[in-house]
Amino acid sequence: MTVRGAGAIGATAAYGLAQGVRAFRGGNLKRFAIHADRVYSILRDARPTAVDPVNAMNAVREAMASETTVKMKQAIALDAARKFADDNVAHCQAIGEHGAKLIRTGSTVLTHCNAGWLAFVDVGSATAPMYVAQSRGTSFTVYCDETRPRCQGASLTAWELGQQGIEHRVIADNAAGWLMQQGQIHLVIVGADRVLGRTGEIANKIGTYTRAVLAHRHGIPFYVAIPMSTLDWDLKSGRDIPIEERNGSEVLGAWGRAENPRARLRGVAADPASDLTYVRIANPDSMAINPGFDVTPPELITGIITPHGIFRPKDLGALRRRGN
Amino acid sequence: MTVRGAGAIGATAAYGLAQGVRAFRGGNLKRFAIHADRVYSILRDARPTAVDPVNAMNAVREAMASETTVKMKQAIALDAARKFADDNVAHCQAIGEHGAKLIRTGSTVLTHCNAGWLAFVDVGSATAPMYVAQSRGTSFTVYCDETRPRCQGASLTAWELGQQGIEHRVIADNAAGWLMQQGQIHLVIVGADRVLGRTGEIANKIGTYTRAVLAHRHGIPFYVAIPMSTLDWDLKSGRDIPIEERNGSEVLGAWGRAENPRARLRGVAADPASDLTYVRIANPDSMAINPGFDVTPPELITGIITPHGIFRPKDLGALRRRGN
Repeated sequence: MTVRGAGAIGATAAYGLAQGVRAFRGGNLKRFAIHADRVYSILRDARPTAVDPVNAMNAVREAMASETTVKMKQAIALDAARKFADDNVAHCQAIGEHGAKLIRTGSTVLTHCNAGWLAFVDVGSATAPMYVAQSRGTSFTVYCDETRPRCQGASLTAWELGQQGIEHRVIADNAAGWLMQQGQIHLVIVGADRVLGRTGEIANKIGTYTRAVLAHRHGIPFYVAIPMSTLDWDLKSGRDIPIEERNGSEVLGAWGRAENPRARLRGVAADPASDLTYVRIANPDSMAINPGFDVTPPELITGIITPHGIFRPKDLGALRRRGN
Repeated sequence: MTVRGAGAIGATAAYGLAQGVRAFRGGNLKRFAIHADRVYSILRDARPTAVDPVNAMNAVREAMASETTVKMKQAIALDAARKFADDNVAHCQAIGEHGAKLIRTGSTVLTHCNAGWLAFVDVGSATAPMYVAQSRGTSFTVYCDETRPRCQGASLTAWELGQQGIEHRVIADNAAGWLMQQGQIHLVIVGADRVLGRTGEIANKIGTYTRAVLAHRHGIPFYVAIPMSTLDWDLKSGRDIPIEERNGSEVLGAWGRAENPRARLRGVAADPASDLTYVRIANPDSMAINPGFDVTPPELITGIITPHGIFRPKDLGALRRRGN
């Protein structure tokens, strides 16, 4: 969890594999292949739910396969990693162009977790349409789900939007349904950690499925924004997506900046000098379960915003032939 | 928020009114009435979404109306408050008896927020069926929604269940949908702050509506447990229920016991000697909106567990003639 976000962990895995294979000494191709496989497995298993690292490393692997010596394989691995990162930048920009037209002046957009420039090499996926819409003069408000337990929405997305000067409000994850019922949310855009090209199912941060169910009930469009590397063409069912189970202590407490207790509920500013503090919120003797992701079925998804346009989840197959 | 929970704030309001009218000196009935009205208004406005304080104080008021001197009114007010508290105990016990048969051995029950003995004069509403089921030898597991932003589920409900020796797990509010999709939740029981007898709509802690929508999608029974004092026979629509808007700082951070940062994610026990610390989780410059409650429509509710049995939300009218 030092690096997070679909695009960012993809690029990190690509560079990680390139760096890992450069550590190999000698010219024995068989031993090199064993070494490369080991690096690949370690990086893949670090984040089982996400497919970007796998696709990114597969691109590096394929590039290496075209070369015949260890030295040349090591060199092309770095080129391939660079290309993955550059593609990610271009993809996010294209997602922004396609998605921006969904956002109208005066509207409100809900997003979950963080799929912004902190999660990608640049611009982000779910936030890209917001940034492009803003640059075109559209004025709108974003509701950021706080996204327990790690609160990436409250900390990262809110910070990003603040930096970009986009009007936003943080809400408790519990409040999204009520705001939809009140007609206060017009559009939902989220990112994804894995999108099954064959079925249109998407895996994303825990709580995404709940937003999709709520949006569907209220007839609110629900979009998922992804670069090409988030597409998985292998898995045949969302049930096969491994769901990372994280440490229960994330749910039993929270990390933040400790504030003067006297300031209490007056919403004072944080002390930027202090380190983060973990506070235990839950009953000390209780345990938690903490699935990190969930799977949303295609019937709840209005469209997938890709670098090549917006597709219905069932129509993603058209993208398969396009490659990147 | 020194006292919380539908039954507990009802009893507190009843005793508060009784105590408030005892502070009146002299025998002038007109001045006494003005004084009593002022106490009534202050207590009522402290918690606008809940109806228990209003019903509790109305019972005290009616008792006072039957007396003819200030002294006698002051005396009967205390009796009426005591009767409200005693009724609350009996009601919660009866709710437990009716609701216990919904819980089967080996099943899992989801609850939201805290509607346990910390929220009532005794036994609780949503938890009462659990306690009775346990006393009958039924073995089951409770999932406690942490219930952001104030986390009453993680702190209060988890603590109560732990004290009672009931198997439980705390979950992030985001995880309920995924657990339902996985077939891991068999029953939902929540409390309420106000139930409209005319329409079957219920107001309860923010996020309740979301659980009802999710349970409905997955065909999971969704029950609301209430004593008689939570019934509102006046309001004609859920839209008329005032929804308390709370301080945004609740969403922007969390209260808990600070732990040794070195212990970090290893889930260490809390230090019971330390005071609660507020940590700011969100981006320092961002603001939050924080509705405290939401309204769930009757079509999402399987039944209302009352002291007089379990009723479909549309059939609550049958209770009107029964009084208490």
